[in-house]
Amino acid sequence: MAQELKDKIERSREDLLEELKEFLRIPSVSAQGGARFRECAEWVARKLREAGAEARLMETAGHPVVYAEIGQGERTLLSYGHYDVQPPEPLELWESDPFEPEVRDSKLFARGVADDKGDVLARIQALRLYREVFGEPPFRLKFLIEGEEEVGSPSLGKFVRENADLLRADACLWEGSMQDESGRPLIFCGTKGMLYVELRAKGASHDLHSMYGGIAPNPAWRLVQALRTIKDETGEITLDGLHELADPPTELDLRAIEEIPFDEEALRASWNVEAFDRGLTGDALLRELLLRPTANIAGMHSGYTGPGSKTIVPSEAFVKMDFRLVSGQSPRRVMQLLREHLDRRGFEDVEIVDLGGLEPAKTPVDSPVVRLAVESWREIGRDDAVVYPTVGGSGPTSFIATDLGIPTVMTGSVAWAGSRIHSPNESTRLEDYFETVEYFATLFRKFGER
Amino acid sequence: MAQELKDKIERSREDLLEELKEFLRIPSVSAQGGARFRECAEWVARKLREAGAEARLMETAGHPVVYAEIGQGERTLLSYGHYDVQPPEPLELWESDPFEPEVRDSKLFARGVADDKGDVLARIQALRLYREVFGEPPFRLKFLIEGEEEVGSPSLGKFVRENADLLRADACLWEGSMQDESGRPLIFCGTKGMLYVELRAKGASHDLHSMYGGIAPNPAWRLVQALRTIKDETGEITLDGLHELADPPTELDLRAIEEIPFDEEALRASWNVEAFDRGLTGDALLRELLLRPTANIAGMHSGYTGPGSKTIVPSEAFVKMDFRLVSGQSPRRVMQLLREHLDRRGFEDVEIVDLGGLEPAKTPVDSPVVRLAVESWREIGRDDAVVYPTVGGSGPTSFIATDLGIPTVMTGSVAWAGSRIHSPNESTRLEDYFETVEYFATLFRKFGER
Repeated sequence: MAQELKDKIERSREDLLEELKEFLRIPSVSAQGGARFRECAEWVARKLREAGAEARLMETAGHPVVYAEIGQGERTLLSYGHYDVQPPEPLELWESDPFEPEVRDSKLFARGVADDKGDVLARIQALRLYREVFGEPPFRLKFLIEGEEEVGSPSLGKFVRENADLLRADACLWEGSMQDESGRPLIFCGTKGMLYVELRAKGASHDLHSMYGGIAPNPAWRLVQALRTIKDETGEITLDGLHELADPPTELDLRAIEEIPFDEEALRASWNVEAFDRGLTGDALLRELLLRPTANIAGMHSGYTGPGSKTIVPSEAFVKMDFRLVSGQSPRRVMQLLREHLDRRGFEDVEIVDLGGLEPAKTPVDSPVVRLAVESWREIGRDDAVVYPTVGGSGPTSFIATDLGIPTVMTGSVAWAGSRIHSPNESTRLEDYFETVEYFATLFRKFGER
Repeated sequence: MAQELKDKIERSREDLLEELKEFLRIPSVSAQGGARFRECAEWVARKLREAGAEARLMETAGHPVVYAEIGQGERTLLSYGHYDVQPPEPLELWESDPFEPEVRDSKLFARGVADDKGDVLARIQALRLYREVFGEPPFRLKFLIEGEEEVGSPSLGKFVRENADLLRADACLWEGSMQDESGRPLIFCGTKGMLYVELRAKGASHDLHSMYGGIAPNPAWRLVQALRTIKDETGEITLDGLHELADPPTELDLRAIEEIPFDEEALRASWNVEAFDRGLTGDALLRELLLRPTANIAGMHSGYTGPGSKTIVPSEAFVKMDFRLVSGQSPRRVMQLLREHLDRRGFEDVEIVDLGGLEPAKTPVDSPVVRLAVESWREIGRDDAVVYPTVGGSGPTSFIATDLGIPTVMTGSVAWAGSRIHSPNESTRLEDYFETVEYFATLFRKFGER
C-alpha cells in the first residue's frame, strides 16, 4: 500500500500543485490584514472538509484560527501550522509576483510557499490521499492552523488555554522544520525560550557639555557597568541563578549533538568572521548553540551618533537584549533574576522594560513522536534525517509542548536551506513538496499502526 | 588718572555702545561665511587703526586673521579674540533680530554680543581710551583676532606656527572668561586638552538572527568588554599610563580650588540628578572637574534601536568618546596609550578612529599675568574675582600657551552666566560691558607700570 500511495501522489502531481497555487494566490499577510485575509482561512477550512475532516473557524482577538478534527481512536495526533505569511516587501526584489506563483528551475516561487502554506497544504493533501488509500484513520487527528504566527502569535496562548481540552493530544507535529544545505531532513525536538528586555539608564535631564564628563552621571557608562556584571571578561554569562535554573542536558541530548553533521566552516565563512565567539568549535559550539542560554545585545543607543564629534554627556542610554532560554528557564523567572542581580549590585536605577517572553519547549529526543518522525523518513527511503535536541531559535511551541505537556516535534517541511523564508523570491523545490505529502501520509499511517 | 579714565568711559557710554551695535550688525557666521564676512574683519582692522594700532588682515586657508600692534617697550602683551559668531538659528526663538541689536531690561541682545564681539571691541575701545588718558603704551600690545573660533579654529595652529616670531609675547589675554551667577569675575588659568575618538567593532558581515547569540561574535559586547578595561567597577579611569602622564596639581592649584565658591547644589539641581558621579562632593568634586582627566562616552550605537524588539546579533557597533586631558597629557600620546592598552588585552580588532585632539594648556596660578588679572579687578573696585586653575572645557589656547610657551589667562569678559552664549537671545548686561572696557584699560596701565 506504500507503493499505492507513492503512485497516487505521482499521478496527482499536477492537481496537488494547482491546489497549492490557489492557496498561494490568496494574500494573507497578517501584519497587513486586508479584505481577503478571512477568505484564506475559509479556503483552508474548505480544503480540510474536502479531505474529510470537520473544520471550522474559531475567533480570537486577532485573526481566526482554523480548527479541524477527523478519525476515531484512543490516540490523538495534533498538527500545528499557520496560514498567514510575511509581508512581501521589498517588492522590487521579486523576480515574479509574490502572489502569482511561478515555477522556474523546478522550484515554485511565491510568498509563503515554504513558510508555511506549502507545509499546511501538504499535510491536508496527505490526509486526503491517506484516506483514499488506507481509509478512515484509526486515531484522532486534529489541526490547529493559526493566522498570526508571523506577527508573534499574540492570540495563541489565550486560545490554547481556553481550548485545552479540545487540543488534548498524545503528540504534536509542529511546523518550522527544513532540509539542510545537503538536503538532510532536520527534526527539532524543542525551541529555546526568550526574554526580550530593554535596559534603560538616565543621567541629567538634558545632554550636558562634556567638560562635566568627570562629575556628571553618564547613563552610557552606567549601562556598561551593569552589563559587565552580566558577562565576565571571557564572555561567560554571570547572571545570578540563570544556570542553576536550567535542566541539564541529557546524555541523549549530548549524543544527539555528536551525531549532527554540522559544517561550521561553511557557517563561519558565510558570516565572514575569523572565529566564533570565544573561539568555540566542534561539539562545544553546537552545545552552546542548542543547549545553553544566551545574553545577546541586539541594539544599543546613547547620545550623539552622527558623523564627527559632539562633546556631550548624554542624558539617556538604552540597551536591547534578548536572552534565549533553555528548558527550565522561564522568561518570567529570568526577568526576576535580572532585577535581583542588578539590585544586589546597586543598579536599582537601571530600568528593565519587559518587551516580551516565550517559554522554552523541549521534548526528549527519545520520545515516541521523535522516533515516529525519524522512522517515517526511513519508510520513504530517507535514512539521513538528523535529530536536533532543540533549534537555537524560539517560537510559540511552548503553548502546546510546555503548557499542555504534549510531546512536540518539528518535522517534515517543504522548506530547505535555500528557501529564502521571509525574503524576496521565497521558493520550494517541487520534489520536496511531493515528498512532504508522502512523508505526512506515511507518518499518519505509522501513527495509526501503533 | 584712574578717575579720569572712569569719567571718560562714563561720558562715552553712548558712543561705545553705538560702535558695538555697528559691529554686531555685520553678520560674521563662520560656519556660513557669506558676502559680508570679510567686511567684518576689515571693520575690526579699521577700529584698531582708529585706536592707534597698525592693523592688517592676514590670510589663512580659511577666514582671515586680523593682526595689530601698538606701543614700544621691552615687554609684550598679546590679546586673543575672535570676530566670528555662532549661527543664529533657530531664528524663531529670538525675541529680536539677532543682527539688529536691541537694548531691553539694561541688556544688549544680539548674536555674538557676549561671544566674542563685545569682548573684542571692549579691548580695542580700552586701548583707545587708555591712549587718550595715559598716552602711548610703554610696552608692546599685539592683537590676534581670528575668524574661525566657532568652527574649531582649523587654521589657527598653522597660523601660529608660521608666525611664531610675530606673536612672541610675555603674556596672553585669552577670551572665554565670564562672570558667574553671583556676578563674580572668573579667571581661568588653563584649558583641558582633548582626544576625541570613535571605537569601532565588527562582527559578521551582516546582522544575524539572534538564535546565534551564543556563538556569533557580537560587536556591541566586544565594545562593552573593551570599555570595562578603561574604567573599573567604581568608575575610576584605568587606562594604562594615563595618570602617570599628568603633571600633578600644585599646592597652589589645590589651594585655589579650596577658595572657589562653588554652588554644587545649584548645579546638581539644574541637572536634576540625585548625586554627582561616584558620589563626589566638595573639593573632591572640583578637583575632578578641573584637575583630572575624563573618559567620557558621548555616544554609542549598535544594531536595532527602534521601538519594540528585533532579534539580531548586530554586525557593527561604535562608541564615541572624548578624553579631557590635563597638563602633561598630549592627545597624540594618549591615542598611543589607548591603542597599546587595548592591544595588550587582546582588543587588536577594535578600531580607534581619531576624530581630533587639542593640547592641554596650563599657566601656573601664581604667574605674573594671573596676578595682573586679579589686581586689575581689585583696582576697579572688584575684590571678588575667583581664580580657577583651569576650566573643565577645552579650546585652542594651547597653540599660544603650550606651543609658544606664553603664559595665558582667560580674564575680563562682557559675558555672565546668563548670557545664553551659542543660544537664541544672547545678551550682555550693559554695566558689564562698560566695566570690561574699564577693566582692560586698567590692566593695560598696570602692565605698563611694571
